[in-house]
Amino acid sequence: MKKLRLFTPGPVMVPEDVMLEMAQPMLHHRTEWYRGVQKEVTELLRYVFQTKSLVLIFTGSGTSAMEGAIVGCLPAGHKALVINNGKFGERWVKVCAAFGIDHTPVKLEWGQGAKPDTVKKAMDADPKIDTVIMVHSETSASAVSDVEGIAKVTRERNALLLVDGITAVGAIPFKMDDWGVDVCVTGSQKALMLPPGLGFAAINDRAWQRIDSGKTHCFYNDVKAYRKSADNNETPYTPAVTLIRGALVSLRKIKTRGLENVWAETKLLGTATRAAVKALGLKLFAADPVDSVTGFWLPQGMDEGALRKTLREKHGMQIAGAQDQIKGKVCRITHMGYVDQYDTLGCIAALEMTLAAMGHKVTLGSAVTAALQVMAEHNPK
Amino acid sequence: MKKLRLFTPGPVMVPEDVMLEMAQPMLHHRTEWYRGVQKEVTELLRYVFQTKSLVLIFTGSGTSAMEGAIVGCLPAGHKALVINNGKFGERWVKVCAAFGIDHTPVKLEWGQGAKPDTVKKAMDADPKIDTVIMVHSETSASAVSDVEGIAKVTRERNALLLVDGITAVGAIPFKMDDWGVDVCVTGSQKALMLPPGLGFAAINDRAWQRIDSGKTHCFYNDVKAYRKSADNNETPYTPAVTLIRGALVSLRKIKTRGLENVWAETKLLGTATRAAVKALGLKLFAADPVDSVTGFWLPQGMDEGALRKTLREKHGMQIAGAQDQIKGKVCRITHMGYVDQYDTLGCIAALEMTLAAMGHKVTLGSAVTAALQVMAEHNPK
Repeated sequence: MKKLRLFTPGPVMVPEDVMLEMAQPMLHHRTEWYRGVQKEVTELLRYVFQTKSLVLIFTGSGTSAMEGAIVGCLPAGHKALVINNGKFGERWVKVCAAFGIDHTPVKLEWGQGAKPDTVKKAMDADPKIDTVIMVHSETSASAVSDVEGIAKVTRERNALLLVDGITAVGAIPFKMDDWGVDVCVTGSQKALMLPPGLGFAAINDRAWQRIDSGKTHCFYNDVKAYRKSADNNETPYTPAVTLIRGALVSLRKIKTRGLENVWAETKLLGTATRAAVKALGLKLFAADPVDSVTGFWLPQGMDEGALRKTLREKHGMQIAGAQDQIKGKVCRITHMGYVDQYDTLGCIAALEMTLAAMGHKVTLGSAVTAALQVMAEHNPK
Repeated sequence: MKKLRLFTPGPVMVPEDVMLEMAQPMLHHRTEWYRGVQKEVTELLRYVFQTKSLVLIFTGSGTSAMEGAIVGCLPAGHKALVINNGKFGERWVKVCAAFGIDHTPVKLEWGQGAKPDTVKKAMDADPKIDTVIMVHSETSASAVSDVEGIAKVTRERNALLLVDGITAVGAIPFKMDDWGVDVCVTGSQKALMLPPGLGFAAINDRAWQRIDSGKTHCFYNDVKAYRKSADNNETPYTPAVTLIRGALVSLRKIKTRGLENVWAETKLLGTATRAAVKALGLKLFAADPVDSVTGFWLPQGMDEGALRKTLREKHGMQIAGAQDQIKGKVCRITHMGYVDQYDTLGCIAALEMTLAAMGHKVTLGSAVTAALQVMAEHNPK
């Protein structure tokens, strides 16, 4: 009878009606029915990306859509600045290397967000750079970058801006057209409240001009092929029909709730969790914390594996660890997906009890109270 | 209250318990639970591929896995013979071109299967060819190729054989290790009775030697990255957890039934449907028909769109049309997935009635009877 609550930063909890929609009898993708579904899903995606541009639907993880965007926007003769402030920034550096794309990585400390000045200096130092690749919410380090400010820099210099919005879009404020972002990518298993298996890429006309100016050296993730099929509300290869069908239900829920409300709720959960972490006497990991996921240092010497195991097995609370140099030292709790303030309070309560049982000095109730105070004050109407 | 039966050659009908398994609450992929699932799914895939080699699980359509295999096995300095006897053969030619892979396409008439002699002659004519890419069951043309015979040729010449087994594996006899096939790929939405969204690639040691000898110019579908993660029963990027969870249920069903029985049942449905097509006075499309899908010419002048619409809307039977030069002239009925002889008899009955209503001369019951005679004679015990 134990209830499991998933607090990992993707996959996230998925609403029951979305899961049941995907359990409907299988239907075919070359039909009016499917084209109608894809058409509406595309419209709803435009809303969550805040763009009038076309949004492509990839069958793959967010990485597939991001690879397609990077390879498409960087034909020979172009050069990218790639901001690397965590595992995902590092991944886009690797994509550039795999496809022989000319690029300069800029490494930041994990936990730091990218600022406009960093981009400005790097572009001034190398006039060949005409494309910037960055991560809005660096999940691995629970840090947020200033996309709006950096977009001003890339616009001034007539460069393209490609944003990995995988744990940002639908979670924290992002306005593709207003800010002047050229390409943004997200995945299904984050704020869009779906299982993993779909990647989405919003691409504006400036980016398409660049893409059309060169030869694309990929196939499965070739954005040109996806655009051609999208004209007819189809995909070039068999799409993950059940997931797209689920997207119709989850995106309608987001539209009905209103994106601003969803952003406010994510922010509330992030703010409350950060207050709870501080009340526990623990330190946040990120210098620039993002609202979609909270990362925090464990008390020194604490057995991270044992902590997460107890949380999962005794309390049904699945939180995430961390990778690379912070593995075993940092844990992460998501505020994305089908998660509300009462789930979050439960997770904080379980964390309090588990830390106390493991010998960390905790005044029981202090973290829950700190979170509750934030919630009572900012509770959206 | 109308019941819909899906007879398209992918997606196919999915068992109810598989759909409901995928509707279970979302779980995370970096857990012991997930690793246990992937481990068992991989073992079961080895069984359906009839191989001791590792099988990789891609989040993507079958095309993603096939792209990964082709790019991995053909680093610079190698050359492929690509057999093109339909839309999928054509696709593998395009993959070679997109990645700048040295290749020679061999075009066959649609409906013809590739024979060992064709491969032998092409390889004799060009000693640079050290890799053969072919489609076992060319779905677009409902034709089967002689993989076993061609594998003898590639083995003699120490060349690699890469097989698109997307509508073959789990449907018609295929024995990777016994036959000496080096790489075989399939997709989830065919004989494996799952929704679309997963691709599977079985790769043997000879192929891995080739892959390890060169640099791989791709990222998302890089087989080396998938192999590395598979060591720990993981995937390099977030996998489609729900679909893999469904695979556990569908593959266990295949294992329990026994692969030879599943092959015999697919053959029975194919044989019975071909008999029905002939009894309707219609011609099969393929010179070398495959048992996983039956393609047949419509009566001259018949409105294919109207036929399929009536079948779908009045009878709930969704069959497939065809592409390119045979579009509007050929229809296809699948024998893969969660489909049995009674579903198939129903489809044949609906086809009889619809053809008769549209003016084709039919003795009502003749096609159903022809199918029934085959079924009564060969019904597996």
